[in-house]
Amino acid sequence: MDIEAFRKAGYQAIDRICDYYATMQDRPVVSQVQPGYLLETLPESAPEHGEKFEEIADDFQKLILPGITHWQHPNFYAYFPTANSFEGLLGDLYSSSVANPTFSWLASPACTELEQVVMDWSAKLFGLGDRFLCKSKVGGGVIQTTASEGAVVVCVAARARYMKMNPSAKLEDLVIYTTTQTHSLGTKAGLILGLDVRALEVKAEDEYALRGSTLKEVLEADLARGKRPFVVLATVGTTSSGAIDELEEIGEVLRDHPSIWYHVDSAWAGVAFACPEFRSVGKLDAINKYADSFCTNFHKWGLVNFDASALWVTDRTYLTDALDVTPEFLRTKQHDAGLVVDYRNWHLGLGRRFRSLKVWFVLRSYGVEGFQKHIRKGIEANKHFVALVKKSPEFELVTTPILALTVFRLALPTSAADGGLPAVNDLNRKLYARLMEHSDKLYLTQTMLNDVFCLRFAIGAQRTEVAHIDQAWKLVKANGQAVLQELERN
Amino acid sequence: MDIEAFRKAGYQAIDRICDYYATMQDRPVVSQVQPGYLLETLPESAPEHGEKFEEIADDFQKLILPGITHWQHPNFYAYFPTANSFEGLLGDLYSSSVANPTFSWLASPACTELEQVVMDWSAKLFGLGDRFLCKSKVGGGVIQTTASEGAVVVCVAARARYMKMNPSAKLEDLVIYTTTQTHSLGTKAGLILGLDVRALEVKAEDEYALRGSTLKEVLEADLARGKRPFVVLATVGTTSSGAIDELEEIGEVLRDHPSIWYHVDSAWAGVAFACPEFRSVGKLDAINKYADSFCTNFHKWGLVNFDASALWVTDRTYLTDALDVTPEFLRTKQHDAGLVVDYRNWHLGLGRRFRSLKVWFVLRSYGVEGFQKHIRKGIEANKHFVALVKKSPEFELVTTPILALTVFRLALPTSAADGGLPAVNDLNRKLYARLMEHSDKLYLTQTMLNDVFCLRFAIGAQRTEVAHIDQAWKLVKANGQAVLQELERN
Repeated sequence: MDIEAFRKAGYQAIDRICDYYATMQDRPVVSQVQPGYLLETLPESAPEHGEKFEEIADDFQKLILPGITHWQHPNFYAYFPTANSFEGLLGDLYSSSVANPTFSWLASPACTELEQVVMDWSAKLFGLGDRFLCKSKVGGGVIQTTASEGAVVVCVAARARYMKMNPSAKLEDLVIYTTTQTHSLGTKAGLILGLDVRALEVKAEDEYALRGSTLKEVLEADLARGKRPFVVLATVGTTSSGAIDELEEIGEVLRDHPSIWYHVDSAWAGVAFACPEFRSVGKLDAINKYADSFCTNFHKWGLVNFDASALWVTDRTYLTDALDVTPEFLRTKQHDAGLVVDYRNWHLGLGRRFRSLKVWFVLRSYGVEGFQKHIRKGIEANKHFVALVKKSPEFELVTTPILALTVFRLALPTSAADGGLPAVNDLNRKLYARLMEHSDKLYLTQTMLNDVFCLRFAIGAQRTEVAHIDQAWKLVKANGQAVLQELERN
Repeated sequence: MDIEAFRKAGYQAIDRICDYYATMQDRPVVSQVQPGYLLETLPESAPEHGEKFEEIADDFQKLILPGITHWQHPNFYAYFPTANSFEGLLGDLYSSSVANPTFSWLASPACTELEQVVMDWSAKLFGLGDRFLCKSKVGGGVIQTTASEGAVVVCVAARARYMKMNPSAKLEDLVIYTTTQTHSLGTKAGLILGLDVRALEVKAEDEYALRGSTLKEVLEADLARGKRPFVVLATVGTTSSGAIDELEEIGEVLRDHPSIWYHVDSAWAGVAFACPEFRSVGKLDAINKYADSFCTNFHKWGLVNFDASALWVTDRTYLTDALDVTPEFLRTKQHDAGLVVDYRNWHLGLGRRFRSLKVWFVLRSYGVEGFQKHIRKGIEANKHFVALVKKSPEFELVTTPILALTVFRLALPTSAADGGLPAVNDLNRKLYARLMEHSDKLYLTQTMLNDVFCLRFAIGAQRTEVAHIDQAWKLVKANGQAVLQELERN
């Protein structure tokens, strides 16, 4: 394909992307294909001779789009929203065009320096303290692919710091602390690093937040039996219910244990710190006071397309001490002179995409004001949803709604009250199964809070308006009522 | 930005990317900016109010492009080529438009199934045996971000398998085997996992390839002192000199050690297996006979844009046993029924980009034939370069050129022969420093082969023609002669 053919195919791609977004609402939210639909359709080997690009582009429409679950659909309420602003999309396109692996400053100065700039901009946007800024020359931010990768990076740095302070420690004794509500990133970090993970208990009465007292008790018991907790992965806004760990209490406990790293994961909720009115609910002060690192994903609720997970540390040398590789062929005079940041030593891989560009495009296009407006819109929409749930006697909230997330369920009718938890769980599993039969119309996910089965309703997609929520609620309510009628009939 | 504004900005982006490639040749290969150029230019905080996209797009041209090192420039001979075909770029664009994290089959069936399809296509393209195919339901391929990430994944799987077979092993005793010529991915995997890495010696007389005898000797000594090597990271085409480890010999040694995982990294060279005539030099038969896993990067010489690192394993359960995380909110009925692949359990993160699309676009557009033509063009161009070196008495080859990579240096004139290695290294450091002063005209990198300082000339970028190589060689030769004249004067 030469330049002119690319121009033609590029225009067509832009037009088709426009069509995709213009018709989004009429598409089934969740792909309705069956397992194997594509495996059985495509040939078993690459073609011997090249095919026309027009045909390939047409096949994207014919074969791929039907197998896509539309995460940008206004009625996508599952997991968390996945950002895909047009501005971010254009950032990705320009970034792809220069194809830089950006592993050292010289590999492309713009990529490295822009990352430093936008990570400082973002730190300020979210109200993070000066010690997290690149400008501080001590701390700094870096864009990771995902919060899971960020958690591994943090655990690697934490382990290195711990081993330096406790050289006789055995890897077998190291423990990563999470809670039973921590995202799978905690378990996965343990699997990757081959280290024990201990999921601390949280209670419904604490809204599933980790308390300092629980941490203190487990920590003392673990230390007494020779275990060596070296990192606490706390959460602001758990996936299941948006729980916010008691960061101040945790910080106070960890004050007596300076070799334990304190990470706060706020992959979903963190972007809400852009609005000063949500900083207190998210315990930003405690993050600024105590945390060694903080992570939030632009690519969830933060308008920047996947992948753009923002990670800040208060001391970059723990990353670079733990991860520095500089063989001869990667040496540059700027690195040797200590003049520049080489981001390869801040993450797991060597090469990395030029991700700061899309963050720059989004923050400049929206401005602080526009970013705040987007966050507030999601939170207002959730208030609307919460009001709908509260008005419906068949339903109840399971936890206090947080920001743009609501966890709810069908309430057990008084006539069936002796069924207890198994009965209400059963009722809600039935409701969820029914809703999944309408997955062309809406998509939400189930979760377990300790032993309580619940439904999650996650708002914040760019195209979700109040009217969509009303429409979604109608469907949830009608199916809930149908499940209750079934129960009465039996 | 609404749909129509996106259409306008999208067309403009496409046009500007066309201009970028049309004017590529006139740009300095390596960015000529100084450290801090952008840090000092951009404001310290995000703007309060949104800015016009036109201005932001203009700033990409004005502020970002001057800070970009043009990896697509025809005179970029550093590191290895970084692919950026227009077809791959379009694949990335369509993929960005649907913004799917593709962590489970249901998250988007198309993303998962297309990855299975293109990984089987690619396995066949490269002549990998049936046991690497997804179709086998035992082995299979997965697209990782980088070969470094792939190496960590492999080491995690290898460690899990080893610990299962040797439950009493201590992490402190585990060892990752690499060679002194292995890419930084070996060292980095060790840093990340907190495990020892042992870089086995290789010799100039073996063209820096690992021999079975060296492995056997070290392995026996290590086992005797209680160490537990659990993975060998062998290489086909090292970064420094394209060395190809003696895979058959290594395989025979490892036959007696079934708990040691055998990984072959061929990040750069592996795509050459698309041409049957290069399968023997790359020891494909031994890979098919012995290896547990194999990795090659489409995003280097393989026409697909970064990131697209292809990793195959012969037994996928070692990945999924080691990395499976399936909390309640990630459960789907298709997963529970064992009907589908959930790629989140084949890599480090949870979410992942829809990368198979660009591989599909490229393989269909080029066909096997077009892919082979591209590889052969690079190898032919390298033959041309080698002839130029051989014709110039001032220069010598340091190793036998491999595929599209040549390692060479200025030869020490007989008049200065008693200076020995320090003198010739000094001469070549001077040459390299001079060439870096012409980094607007060409970019190549230095390396050390044991204690020999050399220059690397890596060919294979899509836009490099013989004329560019002639032009580059002129500059290298003139500067080499200037360095020699200086030597004579002193």
